Amino acid sequence: MPELRKDPIIGRWVIISTERSKRPDQFANSGEGPTEQECPFCEGSESKTPAEIYAIRPHHSEPNTPGWKLRVVSSIAPFLRIEGELERQGKGLYDMMNGVGAHEIIVETNQHINNICDLNEEDIAKVFTSYIDRITDLEKDQRFKYVLVFKNYGWSAGGGRIRHSRSQLIATPVNPKRVKEELAGSHAYYNYHERCIFCDLIKQEMDTKERIILEADGFIAVCPFAARFPFEVWILPKKHSCDFTSLDMPMRLNLAYIMKQVLSKLKKGLNDPPYNYILHTAPFRRPSKAGYWKTIDRDYHWHIEIMPRITRVAGFEWGTGFYICPLPPEDAAKFLREIKV
Amino acid sequence: MPELRKDPIIGRWVIISTERSKRPDQFANSGEGPTEQECPFCEGSESKTPAEIYAIRPHHSEPNTPGWKLRVVSSIAPFLRIEGELERQGKGLYDMMNGVGAHEIIVETNQHINNICDLNEEDIAKVFTSYIDRITDLEKDQRFKYVLVFKNYGWSAGGGRIRHSRSQLIATPVNPKRVKEELAGSHAYYNYHERCIFCDLIKQEMDTKERIILEADGFIAVCPFAARFPFEVWILPKKHSCDFTSLDMPMRLNLAYIMKQVLSKLKKGLNDPPYNYILHTAPFRRPSKAGYWKTIDRDYHWHIEIMPRITRVAGFEWGTGFYICPLPPEDAAKFLREIKV
Repeated sequence: MPELRKDPIIGRWVIISTERSKRPDQFANSGEGPTEQECPFCEGSESKTPAEIYAIRPHHSEPNTPGWKLRVVSSIAPFLRIEGELERQGKGLYDMMNGVGAHEIIVETNQHINNICDLNEEDIAKVFTSYIDRITDLEKDQRFKYVLVFKNYGWSAGGGRIRHSRSQLIATPVNPKRVKEELAGSHAYYNYHERCIFCDLIKQEMDTKERIILEADGFIAVCPFAARFPFEVWILPKKHSCDFTSLDMPMRLNLAYIMKQVLSKLKKGLNDPPYNYILHTAPFRRPSKAGYWKTIDRDYHWHIEIMPRITRVAGFEWGTGFYICPLPPEDAAKFLREIKV
Repeated sequence: MPELRKDPIIGRWVIISTERSKRPDQFANSGEGPTEQECPFCEGSESKTPAEIYAIRPHHSEPNTPGWKLRVVSSIAPFLRIEGELERQGKGLYDMMNGVGAHEIIVETNQHINNICDLNEEDIAKVFTSYIDRITDLEKDQRFKYVLVFKNYGWSAGGGRIRHSRSQLIATPVNPKRVKEELAGSHAYYNYHERCIFCDLIKQEMDTKERIILEADGFIAVCPFAARFPFEVWILPKKHSCDFTSLDMPMRLNLAYIMKQVLSKLKKGLNDPPYNYILHTAPFRRPSKAGYWKTIDRDYHWHIEIMPRITRVAGFEWGTGFYICPLPPEDAAKFLREIKV
């Protein structure tokens, strides 16, 4: 059983994963790179994955058989386990709980396509629909506080040996530290200014235009002012909303358009780089919550952060939480703006 | 001139470096690995580096000539610039300041040795002496609030193409976010328990022994309870002290012993893995400070964090500030304990 453990000094939670454990000596530095394996995610290989939790497939077709457009399955080596009650315990000064949660793989297409930007917009919108449906379902489980949706594309972004296009989600019984920091920061800004900080940021970016990559129906794509990485991109909905799951189908199609544009620009301009993207959306807002949790709808603004992995993160960043970005975001935005896709 | 920019939502500072800027298209994914270059850090190549700021060399020998044991030089591509007044300014909702700071390279030996663990203990102690002397000197500059000392060893730890053993330091006009979090966390613990959290942690680890790698005169080496990475190691002084610069010579030699032991165990047990280490020490404690800055001497406890870079950090970690560690620290400690060096 995996464990969730809390750093006693700064309060960061860590999953100590036991499911995918190797022996200590198997971690030795091998310098090994990617080698393609037989793909378990293609149509016709349904028996090679755990049973499907969710699928977009014709209504007469059987689960775990061909014919689907998109499938969600449990991870074969889950970071967290769905079974069991959540138990918190102390060990001297340390806090821990058992690793209850969900870890699911969203297989985005039945074809062996690698990069989501090579799907058509309608199929990309289906991916967002599956995120919404899975988050909404997992919200019913009172053990969970947050669902983190992310994508690892390419070997050095943690994408693994199989290149079939997919996303992952993890439902966690704790709120991630970064999420709490964003909520606290946007709450403090609202209290002072009586405006959403993200709405203000969007307005300022649309005025100055220097960090805008693309403006489209309902969304903008910008390189953030304090970018951590070269070509870091945030996609923000222009209309205030804290919750990704409230996105209707026309807006999902708009989001699919801008995501396809931006990811295609990265692919073309930077020679198909590895990247991660992360959905930043509000945690589950349950009635029992107090403090700044009461005003999340007002304070927070969902968005997607895309991080190409083209520079190595060195020791400086790990030790301090502050980053060195070797390319001004204004230059990155100009470069991406000018790439035609 | 580089800039320091603050993320408006969570308050993280980022250095936007302009000195080492490449054109945007030069960031394209090349998959290139390390190739060894001619080393500018070996004895006899003094003219290939910026002028020395500090050296351990015989008293009759000239600066920037052979004969030295250890040299500190400015970085040839500094992240921050030493010249200029610190100017804060706003740009709409954004905060920034000009990138004033220092970025120095500590060349740890005149020989072309790669890994600090292959120096003898006396020479490793000289490295710590140079850290102390440089921090103490930079503290006099009222523009700076913190000196971050770190090492990037090996290509995937950001070590660059030249493998000559060296550390880096960066003096910053802001306190790094992670440092503030550690200070706030240890302050809160002291206020509740009237004890130092690190002293309590050391006591608990010495009682249970399951995460101890090595106990030596004055120091312990442990795999932390909530390790972020396989084989993450913290080196802690058993005696309470917030400030690395107060370390006397006998203790520097003790630290050299335990660092050499631990880094040699990593090298032998894990096939010479890339790693980073970061010195976590108190920021400059100036009289004007209020709040928890008044009690740093009481609350905080300096230490060194060593992070082998043998697994890739995936999207999950970036988006949440919470980590998945695939090896329980108890197993890592046992493995390292048993390696004979």
